[in-house]
Amino acid sequence: MGNTNGNDKYKAKIFDIRTGLNVVLFNEKEAVESDMFPGDRVNIISDHGSTVAMVDVTKTMVDPGEIVFFLDVAEEIHVKKGEKVRVTPAGRSPAVELIKKKMDGGSLNYAEIKNIIDDLMDKKLSDVELASFIASVYIRGLNSEETVGLTKAVVESGETLQLPSSAKPIVDKHCTGGVAGNRTTMLIVPIMAASGLYMPKTSSRSITSAAGTADTMEVLCDVELRLDEMRDIVMKSKGCIVWGGSMNLAAADDKLIRIRHPLSLDPTGVMVASVLAKKKSVGADYVTIDIPVGRGAKIQSTQHANELAKQFINVSGKLGMKTEVFITYGRDPVGKGIGPSLECMDVLKALQGNGPGDLVEKSCRLAGALLELCGKTPKGKGYASAVNTLKSGKAYEKFKEIIELQGGNPEVKASDLPLGKYRHVVKAEKDGRIHLIDNHAVNRLARAAGSPKSKGAGVLLNIETGDKVKKGQVLFEIISESEAKLGQAVKLLDKYETAEFEKVILGKMGEAGVFQWKPKGTC
Amino acid sequence: MGNTNGNDKYKAKIFDIRTGLNVVLFNEKEAVESDMFPGDRVNIISDHGSTVAMVDVTKTMVDPGEIVFFLDVAEEIHVKKGEKVRVTPAGRSPAVELIKKKMDGGSLNYAEIKNIIDDLMDKKLSDVELASFIASVYIRGLNSEETVGLTKAVVESGETLQLPSSAKPIVDKHCTGGVAGNRTTMLIVPIMAASGLYMPKTSSRSITSAAGTADTMEVLCDVELRLDEMRDIVMKSKGCIVWGGSMNLAAADDKLIRIRHPLSLDPTGVMVASVLAKKKSVGADYVTIDIPVGRGAKIQSTQHANELAKQFINVSGKLGMKTEVFITYGRDPVGKGIGPSLECMDVLKALQGNGPGDLVEKSCRLAGALLELCGKTPKGKGYASAVNTLKSGKAYEKFKEIIELQGGNPEVKASDLPLGKYRHVVKAEKDGRIHLIDNHAVNRLARAAGSPKSKGAGVLLNIETGDKVKKGQVLFEIISESEAKLGQAVKLLDKYETAEFEKVILGKMGEAGVFQWKPKGTC
Repeated sequence: MGNTNGNDKYKAKIFDIRTGLNVVLFNEKEAVESDMFPGDRVNIISDHGSTVAMVDVTKTMVDPGEIVFFLDVAEEIHVKKGEKVRVTPAGRSPAVELIKKKMDGGSLNYAEIKNIIDDLMDKKLSDVELASFIASVYIRGLNSEETVGLTKAVVESGETLQLPSSAKPIVDKHCTGGVAGNRTTMLIVPIMAASGLYMPKTSSRSITSAAGTADTMEVLCDVELRLDEMRDIVMKSKGCIVWGGSMNLAAADDKLIRIRHPLSLDPTGVMVASVLAKKKSVGADYVTIDIPVGRGAKIQSTQHANELAKQFINVSGKLGMKTEVFITYGRDPVGKGIGPSLECMDVLKALQGNGPGDLVEKSCRLAGALLELCGKTPKGKGYASAVNTLKSGKAYEKFKEIIELQGGNPEVKASDLPLGKYRHVVKAEKDGRIHLIDNHAVNRLARAAGSPKSKGAGVLLNIETGDKVKKGQVLFEIISESEAKLGQAVKLLDKYETAEFEKVILGKMGEAGVFQWKPKGTC
Repeated sequence: MGNTNGNDKYKAKIFDIRTGLNVVLFNEKEAVESDMFPGDRVNIISDHGSTVAMVDVTKTMVDPGEIVFFLDVAEEIHVKKGEKVRVTPAGRSPAVELIKKKMDGGSLNYAEIKNIIDDLMDKKLSDVELASFIASVYIRGLNSEETVGLTKAVVESGETLQLPSSAKPIVDKHCTGGVAGNRTTMLIVPIMAASGLYMPKTSSRSITSAAGTADTMEVLCDVELRLDEMRDIVMKSKGCIVWGGSMNLAAADDKLIRIRHPLSLDPTGVMVASVLAKKKSVGADYVTIDIPVGRGAKIQSTQHANELAKQFINVSGKLGMKTEVFITYGRDPVGKGIGPSLECMDVLKALQGNGPGDLVEKSCRLAGALLELCGKTPKGKGYASAVNTLKSGKAYEKFKEIIELQGGNPEVKASDLPLGKYRHVVKAEKDGRIHLIDNHAVNRLARAAGSPKSKGAGVLLNIETGDKVKKGQVLFEIISESEAKLGQAVKLLDKYETAEFEKVILGKMGEAGVFQWKPKGTC
């Protein structure tokens, strides 16, 4: 290794940009002659420090004999413009050999997976290496031991919520997603907290749906809290609903998602590890997982849901968490409103005793199961207990307490919430029966109208699947805060289909891995 | 999609760097809220043009409402600092769906592979997507049809050498590499050209070995020629030896190598396509491929060599090229000198009738086979013809003609070539027999001494495998143009081993795919 000056010293040039990457640039031709290729690791030694960085090359902008630093690395080793630095080959990262092992069909133990995740966190893996890892995990799969190892490594990559040992048990829930509306978390958290359980809930923002729980809760109060703020609130009220993204829990997960996103790669093992790492990082003892199944939901078949459920139960058991999985009807939206303010209205109404039946039923079923799972109520009594906590107003009182602790106005009414003034009403063109309310279509309409960024935008449903409708009857309304966006949403309206179906929990997967069909009872 | 200003216009900020990538940067938080994730494609519409670029995000350096351009994209659509540009979602590239198909175990037809390679050339694929493609090809493999399709697509990605239809037949050779010395190309090209065949040879520079053919030829003349210059030379002398990297032949290959390098991913199908695309792009009709096998060579087992040979023959046949593959003994260096000047000396001596026996023998065997393959000589007469062309001095005259056309001095003598003045002589410590001359060790020593950048550096072997040596006899000499580098090479000296073995062509794979053992005759 060396440059055209015949030695291994390079003159530093600094580009005033922070890239978030651990990269230095060399002149392409010189790099080839000096045996340095994009993605190679080099030791950079300055008078004030040293580090390992990745080589990239450029045909222009860098002369032979020069090395370009971005601010990230320049600041790390205090390099100044014009300073001479030494560059020597650093050899391949051990993580790269491990990625190769996985590609070649081998399995990785915990220490090996931790090595990869640690290198990822230390910016020692390039996108090319990380993408190769995700692709091989997608193609080769992860066995149970690997999934447990990945979950642990992801938990250890970030901070964890530390509650006093007296704050037990800690419960949590997760939904795999895709169903429009479906704000069960905002009912389950106050029901559980009002029942005396700790539920430090972190939620996500929307990626492709009309709104995530964090987007919706944000209508009422602050959701971007620090971990210590979250801890204080949970110690006061037992529950909270915050955005997970503003904390450093399971930090590696975001970096993995960044690589999975472009190809929509969602290897089951990585998905299981991602969900359970978030539960483990808040110290959960008991977890309920909701897997909606059906067209428009993220999971499309009960077979896939069953496989996923087995893995959730198996892996969480090895991590010391007791988990139950519910496979639920996911073909229709849950609740009337789709979009942050509209969903908040459903939630506030439900807490006050007059919310949408499906949202209330599903939330109480899931909360009831969690009450039984953690032993708070005897088997068979959870649902009734959850319903009672809701109907008695205790859940609402708890919700107001949480809103206030998160900096919102606890006395806020549904009618106070922001709602767009631009409306488009869609009516039935003939008599008939509603066959399907497509999740994708509803989410797309709501997003086109401005949701979730525009809190007051969305879709308000006036019917549900199975309803008989008369010509001219209002089916739904699109609401927007912008006339232009309303127009865009109206343009999308050609996508609709419409039959009947019962909304039920399709099945329940218990800890013993036994699949119990429960086709009774609407939810 | 939109920004915090509530619309989809962003204010341009321009970073004065050329990245070679088709990327624009947004503020991370705003991007998430606006539904843009790293790797997403967006349409960028300015007053003066529009393009599709890839999204990347940064926490710092970009404020909400801003978009950062690097020079590449800014110049393409003539965006000025402060200008407002529109950004709309561009949807996923069809190539990404094709990469997903390959990951999921599907096979791709020619049009699909061409779509991926075209997107690669148009900078429409991110490193993450390309790495996912290479990883899936590595794990899933490429079938014969896919390999043919990839080869065609790679050929079409660059320019091709167009000779008049009278300039036939065109012959070519390739060596999979790893053997130190082994400058057979520099003998085969003049032998073939002097025999009346067209041989427009592009060679590579060293990657990990002491020198590539291009590095060695460069001691004598210019090797960085334009395609039209190469064409002129070939039309005059029938042969040339130039660096392939200075032309735009099989252009996609370099981009694929950039991704394969970090993990040393060398999927057989991609390797076959890479080699054959280079042959096809110069219009070759007949090709001889040398696969040295053994410790230190790139291909380590005859089994692997056989598989590779079958693919070379099968795929090149479908591309209209007739190919023979020779599996050769690759455990020892070929020739005496290792390093550009030293290897040139071997070549010049061989052309003048007194070169190293193994280099002369191997070159004449391969040249003879190629003479028979293209029908220039009857079966069984090629070797003798090649030997005759060499011994008669015709090959040397042709070589001098080529050197002169490539801008060198045809009358150069071995003693004129630059050679380092710093020397370290290694002598036998006891009586014995040479067991092995390790290619890796020889290459590493020569590189440590400064080869290939320092033309006069390298290793000069005084023995070959099988030699009986006496204590105190000179085994080899390390030569360097720098005292410091000589010192580094001397430090590496602990790595040597030493027995006997015959150097023979291990086998030959003919067009019918029949493997013929030929353990007779030294080569």
